[in-house]
Amino acid sequence: MNAERYADRRRRALEAAEEAEQAGLLVTPGADLLYLTGYAPLPLERLTMLGLASGRDPFLVVPALERPAADAAPGVEGLAVFDWRDGQDPYEIAAGLLRSGRFAITDQTWSSHLLALEHATADCLFVAAGRVLPLLRAVKDADELERLREAGQSADAAFADVVGLPFAGRRESDLAADLDRLLRDHGHDRVDFTIVGSGPNGASPHHVAGERTIEPGDAVVMDFGGIREGYCSDITRTVFVGEPDEEQRRVYEIVREAQQVAFDAVRPGALAQDVDRAARGVITEAGFGERFVHRTGHGIGLEVHEPPYIVEGDETVLRPGMTFSDEPGIYLPGRFGVRIEDQVVVTTEGAERLNEASRDVTVVG
Amino acid sequence: MNAERYADRRRRALEAAEEAEQAGLLVTPGADLLYLTGYAPLPLERLTMLGLASGRDPFLVVPALERPAADAAPGVEGLAVFDWRDGQDPYEIAAGLLRSGRFAITDQTWSSHLLALEHATADCLFVAAGRVLPLLRAVKDADELERLREAGQSADAAFADVVGLPFAGRRESDLAADLDRLLRDHGHDRVDFTIVGSGPNGASPHHVAGERTIEPGDAVVMDFGGIREGYCSDITRTVFVGEPDEEQRRVYEIVREAQQVAFDAVRPGALAQDVDRAARGVITEAGFGERFVHRTGHGIGLEVHEPPYIVEGDETVLRPGMTFSDEPGIYLPGRFGVRIEDQVVVTTEGAERLNEASRDVTVVG
Repeated sequence: MNAERYADRRRRALEAAEEAEQAGLLVTPGADLLYLTGYAPLPLERLTMLGLASGRDPFLVVPALERPAADAAPGVEGLAVFDWRDGQDPYEIAAGLLRSGRFAITDQTWSSHLLALEHATADCLFVAAGRVLPLLRAVKDADELERLREAGQSADAAFADVVGLPFAGRRESDLAADLDRLLRDHGHDRVDFTIVGSGPNGASPHHVAGERTIEPGDAVVMDFGGIREGYCSDITRTVFVGEPDEEQRRVYEIVREAQQVAFDAVRPGALAQDVDRAARGVITEAGFGERFVHRTGHGIGLEVHEPPYIVEGDETVLRPGMTFSDEPGIYLPGRFGVRIEDQVVVTTEGAERLNEASRDVTVVG
Repeated sequence: MNAERYADRRRRALEAAEEAEQAGLLVTPGADLLYLTGYAPLPLERLTMLGLASGRDPFLVVPALERPAADAAPGVEGLAVFDWRDGQDPYEIAAGLLRSGRFAITDQTWSSHLLALEHATADCLFVAAGRVLPLLRAVKDADELERLREAGQSADAAFADVVGLPFAGRRESDLAADLDRLLRDHGHDRVDFTIVGSGPNGASPHHVAGERTIEPGDAVVMDFGGIREGYCSDITRTVFVGEPDEEQRRVYEIVREAQQVAFDAVRPGALAQDVDRAARGVITEAGFGERFVHRTGHGIGLEVHEPPYIVEGDETVLRPGMTFSDEPGIYLPGRFGVRIEDQVVVTTEGAERLNEASRDVTVVG
């Protein structure tokens, strides 16, 4: 990625902001800043902010002590950089650079920064970028798709390895540590989550691995991922310790079918909510509608959760290059849960999976 | 930590909010939520929010799929929990629970959440908690101090080990990987940063380790830390590859003296800015005032940067149990930098260091 491509992304972002009737876009550290400048400082209490505003050159406000790091980022060339020292008021500097108007601001911007900007500016209004520019990073280019594919393959490889390890008699946290290690072994730079929910814990979708000892007869939900070369992986598989009983198998097959039907619903021109309806239809039809307690999916890219969201009410029109998860689940409180998750990309014809790990019933030892 | 202690912290937090003329305190995932409930979900796009408001029971708004995890947290007992499903509007739920008034809200709350709350409420105003309740977690109790001390000792041990490793001919990123491993070996649960700035890179205070090969004659700034049992470590030492030359030694001794003089200024009743002035005085007197481009320190606890800040303008009155860094530095662009950082705790008499790694000139191979 050279400086020109970042500048091009910034031009397109400002155009999109203008189309959404915004005076500009304000971006603090996180995925949006990385996307637009290649710069990835920690989001902290000192203000770092990229400003894209109609009728003026893009600018970057940075703490003086981080200026060398900012200047070294690949997409900062060509930006007007304003640094500030501890003791100075960075919001006054930013306010002086903004004209009046309505600005989209990164969803993740700390409230302390937003409130200070509101205080320092007289005629500016702010709106969450996720509301007016949700699709800023949604359509991936070929390079981005390649990285997402590689992250997915790395997660697939971790799953292929973990099912060869013993489950029964070990703690969820032991398996989580295995997954952490395997993801790194297969090329992940960072591991962000290693959910292992065994037996009744699998009925809590965001359960983190705990001290429960895995037992024969358990269903085990494993939902894990991290970052490889800047892009995220996120996969879920549910395995059985010994042959599943009839109910476990039935629930598994319903979830597998829902996941497939949702996948089949992905095509250019479909709406995000159509994909949710497809998955939910299968599960509701089977009598488990109340036990599918979350949306069907979320976009993925530089962030593990980003727009579009595959949920009733998200009317994003799917376009080739959009990437998101397809992850229906059924959760029976106190007993077990099943979730199956792949990342998918919208193609010109329909969709492709970015995960190829087996979705067949998998029995572990 | 049992539920009663969390409830007690919440009572004190609400009292502090009321003293600061707020109608209450709103807390989203992060250190404040962990401190007040023992609950540590990832900060994501789905709203999770603790509300403490005058005249009503404390409440917690959580996504339905995370409700089991929330209920399992040690300090959630006794809270009224309101869950919401994907597709529902959590801000309407929160708005229905708030009376009108001015609420402090966590600094780190995403702007998208704050803007949606502003939109959903009619008569509520919001202010950054860091402005009106900066000292919520500043005074540590005995348990917290013990954990901070252990995190500090763990970082000290990593430093003691790393100076025995070869430096010359290896890349900064190699040393950073060593520090990562050593911190974990010595008990860290998570490593958050491993800055290794060699030679000219040391003049960029927030330089991250890169591909530069370390050379004989380099000063090498190492600033590293992470989390051990929930509490943060953060230490900096500057070492020399071979005997330092006269200028390196002179700069080092100035920084060491500034760090000591700042430490000597720490006592109950002193102001945070007094400690900054003490360090800055030494460095300015020596002619390097312009090269000390950052504040002298920051509070530390559940977060690696938290109030009070040791900077001109922070008039926090120091009290026993407050913990913060003492980390002056001098940065000579294009040449080298020196920084020495310990964590310190205010005692009834003065101060104690939470780091004991040697501050003597250290030569590595």
